[in-house]
Amino acid sequence: MKEVVLGIDIGGTGIKFGLVDREGNIVASDKAKTKGYPNPDMLPADLLKWSNEQCSALQLKTIGVGIGTPNGNYYKGTIDFAPNLPWKGVIPLKEYFEKAFSLPVALTNDAKAAALGEMIFGAAKGMKDFIFITLGTGLGSGIVVNGNIAYGYDSLAGEVGHTIVYRNGRECPCGRRGCLEQYVSAPGIVKTYYELVRHQNLDEFRTSIGNMIDSAEVYKKAVEGDTIALEAFTKTGEILGFALSNSVCYTRPEKIFLFGGLAQAGDLLFKPTIKSFESYLLPIYKNKIPIVPSGLKESEAAILGSASLILKELN
Amino acid sequence: MKEVVLGIDIGGTGIKFGLVDREGNIVASDKAKTKGYPNPDMLPADLLKWSNEQCSALQLKTIGVGIGTPNGNYYKGTIDFAPNLPWKGVIPLKEYFEKAFSLPVALTNDAKAAALGEMIFGAAKGMKDFIFITLGTGLGSGIVVNGNIAYGYDSLAGEVGHTIVYRNGRECPCGRRGCLEQYVSAPGIVKTYYELVRHQNLDEFRTSIGNMIDSAEVYKKAVEGDTIALEAFTKTGEILGFALSNSVCYTRPEKIFLFGGLAQAGDLLFKPTIKSFESYLLPIYKNKIPIVPSGLKESEAAILGSASLILKELN
Repeated sequence: MKEVVLGIDIGGTGIKFGLVDREGNIVASDKAKTKGYPNPDMLPADLLKWSNEQCSALQLKTIGVGIGTPNGNYYKGTIDFAPNLPWKGVIPLKEYFEKAFSLPVALTNDAKAAALGEMIFGAAKGMKDFIFITLGTGLGSGIVVNGNIAYGYDSLAGEVGHTIVYRNGRECPCGRRGCLEQYVSAPGIVKTYYELVRHQNLDEFRTSIGNMIDSAEVYKKAVEGDTIALEAFTKTGEILGFALSNSVCYTRPEKIFLFGGLAQAGDLLFKPTIKSFESYLLPIYKNKIPIVPSGLKESEAAILGSASLILKELN
Repeated sequence: MKEVVLGIDIGGTGIKFGLVDREGNIVASDKAKTKGYPNPDMLPADLLKWSNEQCSALQLKTIGVGIGTPNGNYYKGTIDFAPNLPWKGVIPLKEYFEKAFSLPVALTNDAKAAALGEMIFGAAKGMKDFIFITLGTGLGSGIVVNGNIAYGYDSLAGEVGHTIVYRNGRECPCGRRGCLEQYVSAPGIVKTYYELVRHQNLDEFRTSIGNMIDSAEVYKKAVEGDTIALEAFTKTGEILGFALSNSVCYTRPEKIFLFGGLAQAGDLLFKPTIKSFESYLLPIYKNKIPIVPSGLKESEAAILGSASLILKELN
């Protein structure tokens, strides 16, 4: 029987899960709605049932469970006060799954899981030092040092999205101002776009705010040659490049990987990011640290990342 | 016979070396002038002679050699283009010492060696994640992640002194502007002091620049209650606290250690640093990450750091 692990990605809207073999093939997968589980302790039983069904149908044996989740704490195996999940407080999800499956279980923050996916199955194979950035509704990060995720003292390392790039910049829900993810994220580029619209044409701005576009539409406009949308990408890349030029001073990654919706804009984001990055970079690092797209498919990254977490523990 | 290692610290002016036992006692030490060695390949023979003499006199056995040096490259065992040393180009110093001593030799950057000294013999004993900052003519750093120095891809990680804190700030010899060490270092606080003098009294500034004071004198003035000198410490701490609040987003250290001349100013530096740090800190980190003085004696740190490097390898 082929050995597989169960990779589970928990999001604010949906839960994705799949059985993954050691080569990174997702041999079975499915999804559920997060709000279908008002109590998280009901999730393990359902996933065990699903997993058992798949395993007997496909002649597989599950040997471990990996979980990626917002606010996941690797050391404690808990989800801690996740604002975007229906589960409040501290949820000992690792323990729930261990009881249900009687298998090794590991849980971590979703961005860290994705970074591990990049290392085990993506474009960072064999790398010992890299930075993985995921650009979505926020800016998540996983920092790999000496071949391992940097968890830090309490598992809360890797908050590159909350490094301050403008001391008196945009307000962040974290309570501070000027955090990187207020500029470099899907909502961030939309804000930049509307700042530019307002600067150029106040009347147009007043009309448009009743019917705001999202980051996908900013991208579409940029592709069509809209100068304001293009400028929004340039500014976003400029800020990201600056922030990353500081990032490399800490752990000197071999490469930096960008993942997520905004990263799929390709050259629109990468060109200004790399230009800015190189211009701000300490000379000893110049032209040595590529900023490249993730090697993971958007559709597979969440499950592969969670699976990688437990595969790495089992090896 | 007691086993010891030879710790060597190479500086622009002097070379300090000593025999260190596993408990961190410097059982013998001496120093030499760096310019006494126009060719670095002459150094190992002299230190071998010294070491052999000490060992036979004190009944010791040397089991390894650790070297801390500006621009030390841990992976290659070389000193690479050190502007402050008389040795130009790439110097394979580790190889020279291996040939002379026929013992395990390790070489690294001096700030990273000091961070290891903090971990093995100082106040970071048992810690797996911490940041060590040394404040001297520059701002050096050693970042420990998962119990090991973060060397990064090419051994050049840990350049916190070259993170940019003001995009159009003071010029740095690295060719860029606004690097942290242009503000937070011995020369940095002197610059800040004179900026404040000029701002307050242009005539006094014009008179004073012919006879500039150094950072020790800024400290002395501050202790005596000079408001400009006090303000210089406050501003220096404010900038350091801000920079460190971003630093913790990468590796989430258990503690941050400050070492070196400027750190010896005590509360004058620590109070504004901690105040600023806490004010800029991401809420999940607030009141959890102490900024504390190094536990190493200034007089011993260089030798203990270099000794720690090789002791860690041998263990």
